Amino acid sequence: MAAAAPPPPPSPAPTAPTGLPESDSTPVGNPLFSRIRLATPHDVPHIHKLIHQMAVFEKLTHLFAATESGLYSTLFNSPPFHSFTVFLLEVSRHPFPLHQPQPPTTTTTTDAAAFSPIERVVNLDHPLIDPEEDKFKSVEEVAVAGFVLFFPNYSTFLAKPGFYIEDIFVRECYRRKGFGKMLLSAVAAQAVKMGYGRVEWVVLDWNVNAIKFYEEMGASLLPEWRICRLTGQALDAYREFAT
Amino acid sequence: MAAAAPPPPPSPAPTAPTGLPESDSTPVGNPLFSRIRLATPHDVPHIHKLIHQMAVFEKLTHLFAATESGLYSTLFNSPPFHSFTVFLLEVSRHPFPLHQPQPPTTTTTTDAAAFSPIERVVNLDHPLIDPEEDKFKSVEEVAVAGFVLFFPNYSTFLAKPGFYIEDIFVRECYRRKGFGKMLLSAVAAQAVKMGYGRVEWVVLDWNVNAIKFYEEMGASLLPEWRICRLTGQALDAYREFAT
Repeated sequence: MAAAAPPPPPSPAPTAPTGLPESDSTPVGNPLFSRIRLATPHDVPHIHKLIHQMAVFEKLTHLFAATESGLYSTLFNSPPFHSFTVFLLEVSRHPFPLHQPQPPTTTTTTDAAAFSPIERVVNLDHPLIDPEEDKFKSVEEVAVAGFVLFFPNYSTFLAKPGFYIEDIFVRECYRRKGFGKMLLSAVAAQAVKMGYGRVEWVVLDWNVNAIKFYEEMGASLLPEWRICRLTGQALDAYREFAT
Repeated sequence: MAAAAPPPPPSPAPTAPTGLPESDSTPVGNPLFSRIRLATPHDVPHIHKLIHQMAVFEKLTHLFAATESGLYSTLFNSPPFHSFTVFLLEVSRHPFPLHQPQPPTTTTTTDAAAFSPIERVVNLDHPLIDPEEDKFKSVEEVAVAGFVLFFPNYSTFLAKPGFYIEDIFVRECYRRKGFGKMLLSAVAAQAVKMGYGRVEWVVLDWNVNAIKFYEEMGASLLPEWRICRLTGQALDAYREFAT
């Protein structure tokens, strides 16, 4: 089910990431440097693992059928924001250099110009231990911590596109640090930048923490609408309709 | 609100359109010839009027802010099915010629090849009077009777695209004749043709007739999910986030 919807944000922090220091500043305590950037085909193995973790988190692994090759063939076929788009959240104990080595990519110059990575620093009370640091390493000393997948939707009443957020996920050890808010804010900011009218997503009605979090972020709930889904054999039954 | 969602189908007929005669057959009674084709920029004035009628039907005209120029600038910017796509329902008292004159269009050959119009004949008990026949005339003796607007969505669990139906609407005098089912079936058939995993849309929870209709069409309701929406000033507040 979650494949149709973002999971409830895993215990999201209701407050914004602390401070906005420059990369060359020296925060006290235990700074965790974070960055949101456009994902590339190179990131597919990490995205696949994140989606699987999301299925585990939601106890929906019986519905998990995604393969890396499926992701390769269906993502990254359009310029960012025009179709399915993935923002990746990366973290490091060290500042991201101004010209941080990027993973190998087929992203074009136009794509890179479409989105400048967003950086934030979170000052932690204690050093953070990531038990899966190696598994989620993107470049040296940088780990993938989460993602958001979104795509354009459309409002006929506004005659304007918007964005629909399909999934937003932060790995367990990085939760409650404002990263869910950071990912959602990045999508909202991009929508504003593009003159879009709305950002929408869905939430489970019993997930009161997530609902509270979303409302604090300025979202309204539309309580009367229900999702209808045609899938599997019921969808396949329409194969002959147009012939 | 309806701009985020298809309206409840206006008293949809639970049965399929009767018969599947060829264009050259001669149905008895009062045949109404119908056709679903891809909309083109030429159809924008009709689409705009249909969206407005939908707002009236839903008592939501206070939310209606679409202009023809807004529709022109946001629709038809991608090949059909890759982004926002509109199927138009046309009706006529006469068979559609095999080479029915099409409205002037900027549609490319590729686009035209992407979808062959679907034709059906409905045999009515009584001749149908369309009080807005002139207002919705597309080509000679053909009236626009409804539309469906849809676009790709994405399931991370399937690693597959699907279609999301934003709006489905049939003008009042053409309701209860199977046209809602015909429009929805056309989208479902296209999804199957493209190897997509799902077709989804939303419905108002109190619209029991619409829910019954959708369930008869094979759809499942996902009762636990609620839509969250960030729009207006609440969305605009994120303008500075990425800067």
